[in-house]
Amino acid sequence: MTLPYVAPVDDVALALDVVGAPDVPTLTELLHEFGRFCAEVLAPLNQPGDAAGVGFDPATGAVTTAPGWREAYRKMVDAGWMGVSAPAEFGGGGQPAVLHVAMHEMLNAANMPFALGPMLTQGAVHMLVRHGSPEQQARYVPRLVTGEWAGTMNLTEPGAGSDVGALVTRAVPAGDGTWRISGQKIFITYGEHDLTDEIVHIVLARTPGAPPGTRGISCFIVPKRLVAPDGSLGERNRVRCIGVEHKMGIHASPTCTLEYDGAFAELIGDEHAGMHYMFTMMNNARLAVGAEGLGIATRAYQAAVAFARERVQGRVVGDEPGTPVIGHPDVRRMLLHMRSHVDAMRLLAFTNARAIDDGDDGLADLLTPVTKAWCTDVGAEVARLATQVHGGMGYIRETGVEQLERDVRITSIYEGTNGIQAIDLVTRKLAALDGEPVARVLGLVDATVDLLDGELASLREPLHAGAVALREATAFLAGVPAARARDALAGATPYLRLFGTVAGGWLLARQALAARARTGAGDARATVTARYFLGQVVPAAVGLLPAIRAGAADLDASEF
Amino acid sequence: MTLPYVAPVDDVALALDVVGAPDVPTLTELLHEFGRFCAEVLAPLNQPGDAAGVGFDPATGAVTTAPGWREAYRKMVDAGWMGVSAPAEFGGGGQPAVLHVAMHEMLNAANMPFALGPMLTQGAVHMLVRHGSPEQQARYVPRLVTGEWAGTMNLTEPGAGSDVGALVTRAVPAGDGTWRISGQKIFITYGEHDLTDEIVHIVLARTPGAPPGTRGISCFIVPKRLVAPDGSLGERNRVRCIGVEHKMGIHASPTCTLEYDGAFAELIGDEHAGMHYMFTMMNNARLAVGAEGLGIATRAYQAAVAFARERVQGRVVGDEPGTPVIGHPDVRRMLLHMRSHVDAMRLLAFTNARAIDDGDDGLADLLTPVTKAWCTDVGAEVARLATQVHGGMGYIRETGVEQLERDVRITSIYEGTNGIQAIDLVTRKLAALDGEPVARVLGLVDATVDLLDGELASLREPLHAGAVALREATAFLAGVPAARARDALAGATPYLRLFGTVAGGWLLARQALAARARTGAGDARATVTARYFLGQVVPAAVGLLPAIRAGAADLDASEF
Repeated sequence: MTLPYVAPVDDVALALDVVGAPDVPTLTELLHEFGRFCAEVLAPLNQPGDAAGVGFDPATGAVTTAPGWREAYRKMVDAGWMGVSAPAEFGGGGQPAVLHVAMHEMLNAANMPFALGPMLTQGAVHMLVRHGSPEQQARYVPRLVTGEWAGTMNLTEPGAGSDVGALVTRAVPAGDGTWRISGQKIFITYGEHDLTDEIVHIVLARTPGAPPGTRGISCFIVPKRLVAPDGSLGERNRVRCIGVEHKMGIHASPTCTLEYDGAFAELIGDEHAGMHYMFTMMNNARLAVGAEGLGIATRAYQAAVAFARERVQGRVVGDEPGTPVIGHPDVRRMLLHMRSHVDAMRLLAFTNARAIDDGDDGLADLLTPVTKAWCTDVGAEVARLATQVHGGMGYIRETGVEQLERDVRITSIYEGTNGIQAIDLVTRKLAALDGEPVARVLGLVDATVDLLDGELASLREPLHAGAVALREATAFLAGVPAARARDALAGATPYLRLFGTVAGGWLLARQALAARARTGAGDARATVTARYFLGQVVPAAVGLLPAIRAGAADLDASEF
Repeated sequence: MTLPYVAPVDDVALALDVVGAPDVPTLTELLHEFGRFCAEVLAPLNQPGDAAGVGFDPATGAVTTAPGWREAYRKMVDAGWMGVSAPAEFGGGGQPAVLHVAMHEMLNAANMPFALGPMLTQGAVHMLVRHGSPEQQARYVPRLVTGEWAGTMNLTEPGAGSDVGALVTRAVPAGDGTWRISGQKIFITYGEHDLTDEIVHIVLARTPGAPPGTRGISCFIVPKRLVAPDGSLGERNRVRCIGVEHKMGIHASPTCTLEYDGAFAELIGDEHAGMHYMFTMMNNARLAVGAEGLGIATRAYQAAVAFARERVQGRVVGDEPGTPVIGHPDVRRMLLHMRSHVDAMRLLAFTNARAIDDGDDGLADLLTPVTKAWCTDVGAEVARLATQVHGGMGYIRETGVEQLERDVRITSIYEGTNGIQAIDLVTRKLAALDGEPVARVLGLVDATVDLLDGELASLREPLHAGAVALREATAFLAGVPAARARDALAGATPYLRLFGTVAGGWLLARQALAARARTGAGDARATVTARYFLGQVVPAAVGLLPAIRAGAADLDASEF
């Protein structure tokens, strides 16, 4: 059984409109095509990939992807989808980040374990375009842009997860301007596979005499195969996969332990600047992970609707016998909960991407942890509701819906756990630029409140209440003195939840306004969605205010 | 790697005290012993069982349990643990339901897939003790009580899940007072296995000319092997396992499709009374499932604490470098959230069990759907937090913590989905006995508010606010006219959540009072736990009030 998937292009187009994306008709055209590719080529491979997992040969270190994956990857490269948003000067399509996020939603909806490969490659492109030398760019970027080669990111080590600065992988100069790297990296997504002949590893390591912590980290290119001056691939480099993880989900995505044993490496940019370079990529990577939560949620929503339309079980109050379970109010609540959150996640992720496209770093920096954490936590909630709508059938592997729960689960953990996102939001992002970005968002919410009239008037009060709560919570956290930083850290997670929910409500209200402007009359779908979310979801989030303001005293007084 | 587990006997003893269990010292003694058995014998088999799953031989229909399970089961039988709470007249220990729930917590904490077998057997005992003939009781009950034989419950069919009345399995009279059953049952937990020589299936079926729906269902005993008059086991009955499910979790618990092909059967009690008999067992079964959520949560909590104490990662604000992550306020929030919910679930389940022991059917009926749904939803939340505390390690199978998420996930689905529990609460239980039980609970909450003084005074306001919200929500739902039943159904799920949370806060306040009464002074652990839950969790639940009162209009206006 394959879960249904049809790319929701109309919904995406409306969202692009709401966030003011440029040339929406062209983007929509592209998304139509790409959505069809995702639905037809990638979606059917998702469940078989979960069942097959990846193969690993300890003797050679080779990793094989699931049946059909090489062919699908080849089709994606041949169709030219891989580099749509890469810079045109390197052969990319030069499309904006907001399109990239929209494509990423569809890619992940169709097949998240597949999508992780291109995402990592795009990360490597990003790194090299921003910080690589012209020679490095010429050597690696064009073939990464097309997807002929793949890329990876190597940060984590057994003792260095959330705390990247604790890494111990060593790089020593070879005397010819190149370096040799030794050490072990773990949890490397697509660290080894058979989709491409070359894999370009971006590796963080410590050089001799480097200062401790994050200030002593440098960033290197380590190709799986050495690249000859003519661009041809030569011998294998001294990097090898020594194991793949067995995980809760994303079975078809190889999660590798890589052993570097004096591997040839090229330094990217300046020594000791590695963490800085990583930070410049962080917004894009975290936004992409948020879009994974969104993507899974769209698939889960469609699966739940399809099942609920078909399944007859129990008499629906107010209906004749024999009507499907979609008539039950409790089922409809789950579906509307899912749909309203899908819309809110999409609008938030697109708003975030637009800030990147506009070079509005303050807003992008502020929204990124919210998009990453809120869209992944909520994406997981939506996936669980899909299982719940399926009842007992949802728990059976063959049905395919429980896979969505297992796959999306990692998104709240990797690329900075959601707790770390919340801490980033509270400790860095609120204070950045003297609090201008968060004040601006609050002002935008207020401005939207003022626009809500007619059949949207009922949205005013709950959106206003959400804004008041968010403003109060923000003022509280901003007012915590440095000496009592633990009091702010204690409220970080509920604050991020409140922020995401109020932002989601604000954007759904804007979507309802935009839909009304389009049709000249009320748009039932957008109006009902916003009314549900603002009327029934935002008030519960406002109830987090006491938790945000509680401080660390009780947490610190607890003995566990 | 085996997740740690030590039965939390002191916590359980305090909870027994709070709910007024009889002879707590004796029960505590028993739980000490049983907890050790669970921790030493069953807990180490949990993760290997998940990895091994069950074997199924299509040629013979035989199901084999994971390595070591037969021996562990034998030990449990030999130690006499199986029948502790069964009636003494059938060889049981005659202990109260509250002890049974306390044992069930530990059993599920140690090994939920294992625990499901004894739970089903105890269900069969229950059915036969209440509704079987003296001959049936003599034939089957004593060996079910000891665990020498196992029992099952056969309700579900492909077209009859939540809607049991849709079942089509047929029973025809054999002419000698016995019956022959034909049909297919699915999702039968421990429907076939190698732990016992005999399996006593309790099967719902339809007799010739029976009225449609639930009023035409009869209940039968179908033994796997025929039992000779002298009690010895004879030939195989015509029931056969034709498949086992591949599931998200509880891999080691065989979930079977059973084919009945003219199988020998004995009618239990009266024809057409099968649903009534099932209803008489429902409180116990649903309470037991609630205890599964509780049990998994206790294990998850212990695993998270153990990991957080060991793992060093990142500088803790206010600490020297190199201290473990348990110092981070965000980690402490997760742990306190887990612990406070574990305590609240335990107190709720024990209160429910005490109502059963007291023959207080009104209270037991009211609390059962809350215990089932709230403790399973919250149990799943606690399990997810344990994974989150583990970070990337939590997503790896070998760590063992993600299994808890996968296992507990079924508890929100089976034995009536949590949506069905909410509907049961709102449509039947609130109105029962003219609303006396719910009014009584609200009165008890008010009485507790009045007792909160001294260092517990800060609990008054949030508990009072919770009671006000619950009273208002209850009055709203009770006031919905029958013609607008969908408006009450629409608010069922958030209402149950509010009910469970306010009840949890009430019971944690009582626990804090009880702990103070014990020591004569404030008990830091119980006080902080109650203060966190009432101050930071209850307010968010109060925020569900608008969702409860919103009615079905927007749900019904949505097109999906």
